Amino acid sequence: MNLIKKWKQISAVQFLLSVMLVGLVSCNEDSSTNTNSDAQSQHPSLILTQQGVKDIRANLGSIPIFDKTLAANKVEIDAEIENGFDVPIPKDYSGGYTHATHKRNYILMQKAGVLYQILDDEKYAKFVKDMLFQYAKMYPTLPIHPKPRSYARGKLFWQCLNDSNWLVYTSQAYDCIYDYLSEEERTTLETDLFKPYADFISKENPQFFNRVHNHSTWGNVAVGMIALAMEDDSLLQTALYGLKDVNLDASLKDNDGGFINQDDQKIGYFANLDEPFSPDGYYTEGPYYQRYAMYPFLIFAQALQNKKPDLKVLEYKEGVLLKGVNALLNLSDADGDFFLLNDAQKGMSYYNSSLISAVDIAYHFGGNNPELLSIAEKQDEVTLDDAGLAVAIGIKEGKTKPFVKKSIELSDGANGDEGAVGILRSGDLELVHKYTAHGLSHGHYDKLSFALFEDGKEVVQDYGMARYVNVEQKGGGNYLKENTTWAKQSIAHNTLVQNEQSHFQGKYDIGSKHHSESYIFSVNTDSVQVSSAKEENAYPGTKLHRTMVSIKETDLENPYVLDIMRVESSTENQYDLPFYYLGQVIQTSFDYSKSDVPQILGSANGYQHLYNEAISVADGANAKLTWLLDNKFYSYTAVTSHNDEIILARIGANDPAFNLRSEPTMIIRKRNTKEAVFVAAIESHGTYNPVSELAVNAYSHIKDVQLSYNDSNYTAVTIEDTKGGVQLFIIANNDNSKTKKHTLTINSTSHFWEGPYTLIKIK
Amino acid sequence: MNLIKKWKQISAVQFLLSVMLVGLVSCNEDSSTNTNSDAQSQHPSLILTQQGVKDIRANLGSIPIFDKTLAANKVEIDAEIENGFDVPIPKDYSGGYTHATHKRNYILMQKAGVLYQILDDEKYAKFVKDMLFQYAKMYPTLPIHPKPRSYARGKLFWQCLNDSNWLVYTSQAYDCIYDYLSEEERTTLETDLFKPYADFISKENPQFFNRVHNHSTWGNVAVGMIALAMEDDSLLQTALYGLKDVNLDASLKDNDGGFINQDDQKIGYFANLDEPFSPDGYYTEGPYYQRYAMYPFLIFAQALQNKKPDLKVLEYKEGVLLKGVNALLNLSDADGDFFLLNDAQKGMSYYNSSLISAVDIAYHFGGNNPELLSIAEKQDEVTLDDAGLAVAIGIKEGKTKPFVKKSIELSDGANGDEGAVGILRSGDLELVHKYTAHGLSHGHYDKLSFALFEDGKEVVQDYGMARYVNVEQKGGGNYLKENTTWAKQSIAHNTLVQNEQSHFQGKYDIGSKHHSESYIFSVNTDSVQVSSAKEENAYPGTKLHRTMVSIKETDLENPYVLDIMRVESSTENQYDLPFYYLGQVIQTSFDYSKSDVPQILGSANGYQHLYNEAISVADGANAKLTWLLDNKFYSYTAVTSHNDEIILARIGANDPAFNLRSEPTMIIRKRNTKEAVFVAAIESHGTYNPVSELAVNAYSHIKDVQLSYNDSNYTAVTIEDTKGGVQLFIIANNDNSKTKKHTLTINSTSHFWEGPYTLIKIK
Repeated sequence: MNLIKKWKQISAVQFLLSVMLVGLVSCNEDSSTNTNSDAQSQHPSLILTQQGVKDIRANLGSIPIFDKTLAANKVEIDAEIENGFDVPIPKDYSGGYTHATHKRNYILMQKAGVLYQILDDEKYAKFVKDMLFQYAKMYPTLPIHPKPRSYARGKLFWQCLNDSNWLVYTSQAYDCIYDYLSEEERTTLETDLFKPYADFISKENPQFFNRVHNHSTWGNVAVGMIALAMEDDSLLQTALYGLKDVNLDASLKDNDGGFINQDDQKIGYFANLDEPFSPDGYYTEGPYYQRYAMYPFLIFAQALQNKKPDLKVLEYKEGVLLKGVNALLNLSDADGDFFLLNDAQKGMSYYNSSLISAVDIAYHFGGNNPELLSIAEKQDEVTLDDAGLAVAIGIKEGKTKPFVKKSIELSDGANGDEGAVGILRSGDLELVHKYTAHGLSHGHYDKLSFALFEDGKEVVQDYGMARYVNVEQKGGGNYLKENTTWAKQSIAHNTLVQNEQSHFQGKYDIGSKHHSESYIFSVNTDSVQVSSAKEENAYPGTKLHRTMVSIKETDLENPYVLDIMRVESSTENQYDLPFYYLGQVIQTSFDYSKSDVPQILGSANGYQHLYNEAISVADGANAKLTWLLDNKFYSYTAVTSHNDEIILARIGANDPAFNLRSEPTMIIRKRNTKEAVFVAAIESHGTYNPVSELAVNAYSHIKDVQLSYNDSNYTAVTIEDTKGGVQLFIIANNDNSKTKKHTLTINSTSHFWEGPYTLIKIK
Repeated sequence: MNLIKKWKQISAVQFLLSVMLVGLVSCNEDSSTNTNSDAQSQHPSLILTQQGVKDIRANLGSIPIFDKTLAANKVEIDAEIENGFDVPIPKDYSGGYTHATHKRNYILMQKAGVLYQILDDEKYAKFVKDMLFQYAKMYPTLPIHPKPRSYARGKLFWQCLNDSNWLVYTSQAYDCIYDYLSEEERTTLETDLFKPYADFISKENPQFFNRVHNHSTWGNVAVGMIALAMEDDSLLQTALYGLKDVNLDASLKDNDGGFINQDDQKIGYFANLDEPFSPDGYYTEGPYYQRYAMYPFLIFAQALQNKKPDLKVLEYKEGVLLKGVNALLNLSDADGDFFLLNDAQKGMSYYNSSLISAVDIAYHFGGNNPELLSIAEKQDEVTLDDAGLAVAIGIKEGKTKPFVKKSIELSDGANGDEGAVGILRSGDLELVHKYTAHGLSHGHYDKLSFALFEDGKEVVQDYGMARYVNVEQKGGGNYLKENTTWAKQSIAHNTLVQNEQSHFQGKYDIGSKHHSESYIFSVNTDSVQVSSAKEENAYPGTKLHRTMVSIKETDLENPYVLDIMRVESSTENQYDLPFYYLGQVIQTSFDYSKSDVPQILGSANGYQHLYNEAISVADGANAKLTWLLDNKFYSYTAVTSHNDEIILARIGANDPAFNLRSEPTMIIRKRNTKEAVFVAAIESHGTYNPVSELAVNAYSHIKDVQLSYNDSNYTAVTIEDTKGGVQLFIIANNDNSKTKKHTLTINSTSHFWEGPYTLIKIK
């Protein structure tokens, strides 16, 4: 634990350094463009500055990644100008034509605005202007969007969220062509379009605007960006600090079931920085939404930095925005795909455009961390602004260093004391252990769950969300009902389920009051890394304690994961521990009988979506499952008790529209039990080559796993491998002091160690 | 059809040219090393020649792809020499230790032998010699292999097939170190090991050796290679022309159910060239086994070319071996993976080592076709012999041209008159239409079936075989019983099934007597390509006629496939047409009711392995299924009749050991029907980007497909697209003359055309 603190101290020092650097940068900028209000009222001044434009123009042709992005944007926008544009009457949900077109339009305007500044060619300004005037003509005529599903319906789009997206981008375009427009033109646009637009998403939709939620962030930033572009200070105050004197019904909920009006509701941009971000930069909804939220947070921060440097927004909460970029990059697998935590669609990655701007802004305003350049190189694109220029020059000058992702614990909660995500990295394996707070309305009921990745491929999966974003045929591209009935439920995750009920009864108002507790996160040696956490509220009267250990033994090729889930309850319960392996069953150590026809596993709480395909009654020996995924062999070796049931199940029951993926799981079930310890080892041990048809190390290297000791104070597990090695892992269950000395006698042998756990090589 | 003939004529000319070139090469070689029997008895002389070794040594360091392969082999073999080797007592099935070790050993010996020749370092020769002597010591003591499953059990391996593999490689190693050994040492090896080994796989296993089958090819070549190495002409005769005067029981079958002794059984290497290869170079078992067979065929041809040039083996049957390489490369998708025809494991590709040697040999001995160099470049490896040297020099000299895969029909049958495989290529789509002969014991019962690939990804799948080759846990790595009960059955394929019976009753002795007939293969324009074939023996009294058309319309982005399956029977039957799409259901145009619990679809012939998940009764309108695979949107738009049933099913029933993959299908079922036409359009129309979350063209572009006309003479289909285009495709069902003039009146409009089909743009 000291190490963690040390790490945090180092981070703090780094942060102070970076603040100083930011200060220097700010000073430089102050001296050149931003010293007086005149300078600050120049345009462009949001993401581009006048000095930045000069520098870009001076460097063009000699900054490959920037030149390439610019050329690609030019080709795209030139073609669009050629083709003409459409500003259709709003009609569709996401995925439909009018939705997609308005979304395209704001991106095109933003890009065209930037091209105008950089290339100084009026055709780009004209394109933006023409489109803006079409919007200005249509907007005053628009009723509320006809699609009724949102708690905050927009005008251009079915929800204010998308209206806000539009304004965030369009403000940048407006800033870029500000000087190209006549004063009269500006007045028309501001009067007919921007001001009423900003009012609509704020004053007319306080239930959307006045929250701590990614929706509100977009709303706040939309208003803030246009306020900066129009230099409307009153509007800027609304953006930064929320709408004052609004009373909302305390029982209001959003479409995801999240409460809109909390006690002591904090509001505005800064409030949205305070609450969902932990001091480590983890955003409580998880990386999928953090990715989405980072764009408005950072783009506005960049604009504020340029236009209102005195606010020192990037220093806010000890530089939480810049830490957020670091956290987000660490929440991705080897391919840059984000880990699945809470509602999240698979395949979202740091190649998303919002991460391109996040990385560039973090580099430019965050002390020029050369590791960020390696991410930018992979992204192979930069933002066409001052930040992107800085990155392009950094890369050109050969400053790039690899971004090394290490094991890391990222705290959750505004103060960092509401659980955490623990990520253990060893070899090609990345294990994500979730013991966070609920994650607002996008949270899933999966305390102490985990997922395992190998080399960028998910091996033991988190299902993610039940949604096909922007695929109109699937529920308009919105959340599907199976997101609630399946994806959010505990049984859909790799965690313990008691009596076929989800954690917190699957109720947001209960779940959002609690969080798990980090118990140990210790990653100082590569040979043994531990992430251990407790959850005592998911089921009243029941205590859960899960310890996940990554062990790298010298005589085994790959590291393996040891999973110890302890449960103690005052009553007898049924405990299910699912294991969502992905791939094809190769072999099991246990006999099972496969049903002729699969039965539905249960009636509610997600169980109604599982087919029971085969069942086995354990004999007390290890239950081993070997499976093949993407030409790799994996094994799960679980300790069982006599009469444990092993259920081989598959997702897909009660799924009338084939919304769910047909994927397997293995569930270990203990009935009528008060206390239990589920122990298992998870390995990646072999490979298959379909071209040479060679299977290498197709068999598990774990010979035996045993629970050697368990009481309220200590739990010990013995792992024997096929090379003859024997290891004993002991954890102290109630004392995580790094300096406490322990003694434990197991089978007449006494073991001594210091700190909350030990791994002893017996053979 | 004229075009095809023309193509064949051109090929014939090319072949004559290549024969001349080969002649020249042979003459050159004759003049340098092979003019007298002394020269031909020099060593090495199988895959390396003395002149070749000189040339290689002279070029080393300046031929990158060769140098790289050599360096990799050196690193590998040096490490093996360091580690030492094992020659264990044979015990295991494929996948087990002794199997894998003996397999490794022969590859290591072959490589070490080559390294000895090229690098002139005796440690490599010693490695081979030491291992050979261990084998020579063990071999005389060995009983028949203890595993009983094969019809021809080996000694080192469980089947003679693998024993033959060993000898094919080991002969090369022996040839390489021949001069390093003393005469006494050679006598020991030949007397104790090679001669009895060759006798065992020939004389003692005539049921293995005396056939036309890939097993026998390996056997013949094994004996032939060691015969050449030992210069044993009598043994060579046995290899080339088989064992004389052997009488085998006519009822004998091999493990795959194939008859061993046919009427007028042809035997020996040349017989194996005669029968399974068509004049186009298609090998009747399909590309997966062709890949496997090509290695022995070609390696022996290479050795014969070097050692017995007078046999002119590469000119045999108009150069069928070199044509075979071309056929095989054309039977691969964009990634080089072979199409699945008959028993075949997915993922096998032209990256397999046997294709590396095939490509190199075809280049070196087949007229230096520069397109082969592009395949060699992708393989990024060459054989370390004269052929590999030629390729390396070709690449180095910049001669590479792209290997362009076009639409092609490859005839089946020794005389090319037993049906064919038709491959239509258009844009990124590759459609494989199977109307071949049975394919010997590896044949599946799927006349007129098809599979569709896009850009190297299988979209509408052929299941392939039910086997995990060399994965010991799955039935010893051998064929699983589900290969017979599922994978070979008609319902497992994209073809018509009558009355839930497989074609030819699923009986090999019936199926192997018949083949489908090519009716039209016309690919002269990219806008419309047609592959049409008939099958009249699969179900006595029932005629099947399937026409697959690739259509590239100017107003649609992608080409699409039109599928017309006509069936005429003298009796009323149930007809099922399955469609094995891969991916997730996005939308259907028809309502269906999904069962709470899936039911098993049928009781036999593969139906027992399908779960019926959902059912719909057609209303006579088009039934459209849109699905998502790998971020692409596809649609299947099928014409239905009132009361057709649409069954959404999934593989996996009666699969007690999870041997099958859980994958979906959609079946259109017509009951109590004599004549019917199944018509459908298959499109790839859109993409999804999980990073930008944009769905582009998520909806089908086919608005309507109608059967506009059908009688015994003509069938016409109208396709209307969403851009307003309307096309009419007409086929003459009983006259495939290219010059015949046709008139057909449909709905008072008369259409005139010449040739067996036409595509008319109505709008």
